[in-house]
Amino acid sequence: MHEFNLIQKYFTWENPPVDVITAVGDDAAVMGIPADQQLVTSIDTLISGVHFPKETSAHAIGYKALAVSLSDLAAMGATPKWFTLALTLPEIDQSWLHSFSLGLKTLAQEYQCFLVGGDTTKGSLSISIQVMGLVNTGSALLRSGAKSGDKIYVTGTLGDANAGLDSLLNGSKILASEAREFCHRRLNYPTPRLNESFVIKDLASSCIDLSDGLLQDLSHILNASKVGAELDLSQLPLSPALKALDTPKSLSYVLAGGDDYELLFTLPEENEYKLLTEMGDRVTCIGSIAKDIDGIVDKAGKHLESSGYNHFYEAKI
Amino acid sequence: MHEFNLIQKYFTWENPPVDVITAVGDDAAVMGIPADQQLVTSIDTLISGVHFPKETSAHAIGYKALAVSLSDLAAMGATPKWFTLALTLPEIDQSWLHSFSLGLKTLAQEYQCFLVGGDTTKGSLSISIQVMGLVNTGSALLRSGAKSGDKIYVTGTLGDANAGLDSLLNGSKILASEAREFCHRRLNYPTPRLNESFVIKDLASSCIDLSDGLLQDLSHILNASKVGAELDLSQLPLSPALKALDTPKSLSYVLAGGDDYELLFTLPEENEYKLLTEMGDRVTCIGSIAKDIDGIVDKAGKHLESSGYNHFYEAKI
Repeated sequence: MHEFNLIQKYFTWENPPVDVITAVGDDAAVMGIPADQQLVTSIDTLISGVHFPKETSAHAIGYKALAVSLSDLAAMGATPKWFTLALTLPEIDQSWLHSFSLGLKTLAQEYQCFLVGGDTTKGSLSISIQVMGLVNTGSALLRSGAKSGDKIYVTGTLGDANAGLDSLLNGSKILASEAREFCHRRLNYPTPRLNESFVIKDLASSCIDLSDGLLQDLSHILNASKVGAELDLSQLPLSPALKALDTPKSLSYVLAGGDDYELLFTLPEENEYKLLTEMGDRVTCIGSIAKDIDGIVDKAGKHLESSGYNHFYEAKI
Repeated sequence: MHEFNLIQKYFTWENPPVDVITAVGDDAAVMGIPADQQLVTSIDTLISGVHFPKETSAHAIGYKALAVSLSDLAAMGATPKWFTLALTLPEIDQSWLHSFSLGLKTLAQEYQCFLVGGDTTKGSLSISIQVMGLVNTGSALLRSGAKSGDKIYVTGTLGDANAGLDSLLNGSKILASEAREFCHRRLNYPTPRLNESFVIKDLASSCIDLSDGLLQDLSHILNASKVGAELDLSQLPLSPALKALDTPKSLSYVLAGGDDYELLFTLPEENEYKLLTEMGDRVTCIGSIAKDIDGIVDKAGKHLESSGYNHFYEAKI
């Protein structure tokens, strides 16, 4: 099977949406964009053994590769439209490719994000996805909009994926079997918070997705917005799996762990009622923004050091 | 140095154009698109030891990675606007990164294509670039428009890069020293034919860029357009370096070699005068399209077999 057949078999999808003029099969893809919209785009690479354990199933790899990219669009308040895939494989394994493309397609169909182009190359396993979405002109949700007095919110629960990774790599027995399964699922099948973003985008003043741990990602908002933050650690939203652990352990998963793919956003107080009416317990207030704080402190004023994961320096796995 | 500093130091460019609302430094980049334009996008991965010899200079790798992507835009008749970079590196080597980013920037500035986002990861050396450009709505140049009677044209000269690669890998002595230098330059610093594309796009009926050898790339046009072609092998444009070789050798570089990044396009006869007036000897007619030919034949009616390089199956290097 030739490279071209590989793309045709697994990555040429039927029934392209009407805005896709040309997809896989020409030198480039061509797409139409409505006049009042701006293009939002992000590229992410997942390397086997760095961004996922080598044992991860092909289905989960396909799902997760797209999920982390969609999560970036959610953080911008953008609607997903299209993506391209650059896939590097050590060999052609039909059953691996079948599962990988199924995982990818499941999520792509759920959020109506269409594969418009790809490149397959030979080498150690690596997946780059560039996702493209649209926002109404001028309405992208940036990191730089947080203001003193804003509340800090997160979606979902935090630290589950990191606890799952810890149990997977270190054979940690601290999670009960059901909790372990839940945390592994959170690690391998993160949910891009696009539905939540659809509500948040009109209310929040800034937003980021949590990929490198709460403290590191919050510090990106603080740096971009030139403000500080006070966190109420007692309010961090924990799943039953993490609630069952002792506090220092669960705190380390939440503050310095990665791979949450929840949204962290700031909110002017006057929008809080509307947010809670629409989102209920799918969001949690964990602190507030203040101009006179340097960095991040807890309720007692103690500085919390950002020590999130740096993919480049130390392979997590 | 953290991953974030790496991106900031080498890949955060100053003075973004006005259509770039947010570039590197948020979850995604945001760009404005004029109302009468369509988005054209393509992703390409270059793997060390597969798409370029391991000894290739960092400057050439940076240059070539963007050049091959821009070449895809040229083949679509699109104007380059922006690109993203996913860079996987085995280690942080400041001098390598400096040269790589210089090579990338040289070409990016020449064609005003702005770096809007990136991701750096740790692993074996690999570069994925997704390039984005614009065409007037409905005017993208596709592979599928070739018609019986159209002339087949190419830009530039063919086979130089493949001759350069051969001399590099096999220490082939068939090229004189000056010719070798010329061919190595053609291999490492391909010129994306964007200036030529600017003229061709309004005249051609179909177009592709030559990356996998003339026969294989021509067959993509023929398949997409459901036509056949007759080539006049005596008309293939050769550089002095290739003219100095015996015919079977130079023919094999041209027909089955890769990495030319010249444009191959078909042209209705009535546009020929205008093309030649504007392009002169920068383009060469090498054959014609015919509905009643199956595949590709030479002037004597002999079938020419496509045996272009398949990156996936056999590493060229």
